[in-house]
Amino acid sequence: MTDHWLDSLITDTPQQGFELAVLLSRRGVKYTQPDLSILQKLRPEYADSADALTAASQVVATNFQTVAAANDYWRP
Amino acid sequence: MTDHWLDSLITDTPQQGFELAVLLSRRGVKYTQPDLSILQKLRPEYADSADALTAASQVVATNFQTVAAANDYWRP
Amino acid sequence: MTDHWLDSLITDTPQQGFELAVLLSRRGVKYTQPDLSILQKLRPEYADSADALTAASQVVATNFQTVAAANDYWRP
Amino acid sequence: MTDHWLDSLITDTPQQGFELAVLLSRRGVKYTQPDLSILQKLRPEYADSADALTAASQVVATNFQTVAAANDYWRP
Amino acid sequence: MTDHWLDSLITDTPQQGFELAVLLSRRGVKYTQPDLSILQKLRPEYADSADALTAASQVVATNFQTVAAANDYWRP
Amino acid sequence: MTDHWLDSLITDTPQQGFELAVLLSRRGVKYTQPDLSILQKLRPEYADSADALTAASQVVATNFQTVAAANDYWRP
Repeated sequence: MTDHWLDSLITDTPQQGFELAVLLSRRGVKYTQPDLSILQKLRPEYADSADALTAASQVVATNFQTVAAANDYWRP
Repeated sequence: MTDHWLDSLITDTPQQGFELAVLLSRRGVKYTQPDLSILQKLRPEYADSADALTAASQVVATNFQTVAAANDYWRP
Repeated sequence: MTDHWLDSLITDTPQQGFELAVLLSRRGVKYTQPDLSILQKLRPEYADSADALTAASQVVATNFQTVAAANDYWRP
Repeated sequence: MTDHWLDSLITDTPQQGFELAVLLSRRGVKYTQPDLSILQKLRPEYADSADALTAASQVVATNFQTVAAANDYWRP
Repeated sequence: MTDHWLDSLITDTPQQGFELAVLLSRRGVKYTQPDLSILQKLRPEYADSADALTAASQVVATNFQTVAAANDYWRP
Repeated sequence: MTDHWLDSLITDTPQQGFELAVLLSRRGVKYTQPDLSILQKLRPEYADSADALTAASQVVATNFQTVAAANDYWRP
C-alpha cells in the first residue's frame, strides 16, 4: 500500500475522531484486500448482515479507543 | 455521514456514559450501513439471537471503556 | 431505557467489581433487546452453549477491565 | 452467586496472575450458567474444538491484561 | 521462528505505525502456521470473505493500539 | 497446571516480547485443555483455517498489548 493516507491521529472533535476510527477500520480491511472491485462485490455480504455490521462496529470501537486516547479524550 | 451527532465524551454520570457507549456502538453500525430501512429490516436478525445480543454487548463494553476513561471513571 | 441503574463504578471489593461487570454486560444486552420475555426465551440458546458462554465471559472480562481501572485495581 | 471467591487482584508472580485470569474467565462463565452439571456436560463442546479453545484463550488474555495492570506487571 | 523481524515498536509516522500493526498481525498468523504455501492456499478463504476481512481488521486495530501507545500517539 | 513456566513479563527485545505473547496465548489454551494429544489432534482444525489463524493472531495481539505495556514498549 503506497498511497499516503494517515498523517496524524489528532482531530479537532470527537466526531472527527470517530470518523478517523472508521477510516482506520476500512484501511485495516484494505491492507488485507487491496482490490476495490472485490471489496465492492463483498458489500452485500456485510451491509445486509446484522452480525457483520456488529463486527464492523467492534473494529470501529477498538480504533476509536486509540484515537480517543491520542486526543486525551478531547477533554475541555 | 454529514449530521452532527457527537460533541463530547464527557457525561455527568456513569449511566449517561453507558448510554453514550450504546450510541457510539449504533453509530459504528450506521457508518457502515446508513440505510435505516435496511437496519430496521435486520432487527429480528439480532434482537432475537443470543449470540448477536452478546456481540452487541461486547461493542458497548469496548465503547464504554473509552467513555469511562474519558470521564476518569466518574471518580468522586 | 429510563430506569436508573448505574450510579457509580466504585465498589468496595474486586468481587463486587466483577459482579458490576456482569451487570454492565447484561445491560449491554438489555439496551439492544429491552423485552425481558424475549431474553428469557433466548436463555437456552446461550446457557447451554459453550461458545455462547465463552462469548458472555469475554464481555464480562472487557467490562471488568473498566471497573478494575475505575477502582485502581483495589490496590491495598 | 453468593460464595466468596475474589479478595484481591494482587498476586506474587506473573504465573499466579495468569492463573487468576483463568479463574476470572471461568467465573465469567459461571455467573451466566451456575449449574455445574451443565458446564460439565458442555466440556466436550469446547475442550475438543480449536475455535472454542482459542476463544477461551482470548478471554484469559483479556483478564490477564487486567490482572497484570493491577500488579504493575510484576516489574522488578 | 528463528528469523529476526522485530527490532522496535517506534515509527516516525502513524502510517508506518499502522503498517507495523499489519505486520504484527500477519506474524501472529505465521507463528501459528509457519508454512507459507499453506498460508497462500488459504488466501481466497479470507481475501474474498467480508467476515474474515473484518476479523483481520480487528487484529490490526488491536496491534495498532499497542504501536500507537508505544509512540505516544505521535503527538506533535 | 503445576509446571513452572512464567517468571516475568520483562524481555530484552520486542521480538522476545511477541514470542512471550505467543506462549501466553498457547498457555491460555493449555489451561483449558491440558491433554497434549488432543491439542495435536486439533492442529489441522486451526492450522488450515484462515478464520482460526486470524482468531489465534487476535489472542496474540491482546497478550502482546500486555507484554508491551509491561516493558514500557521497549522505548529507547
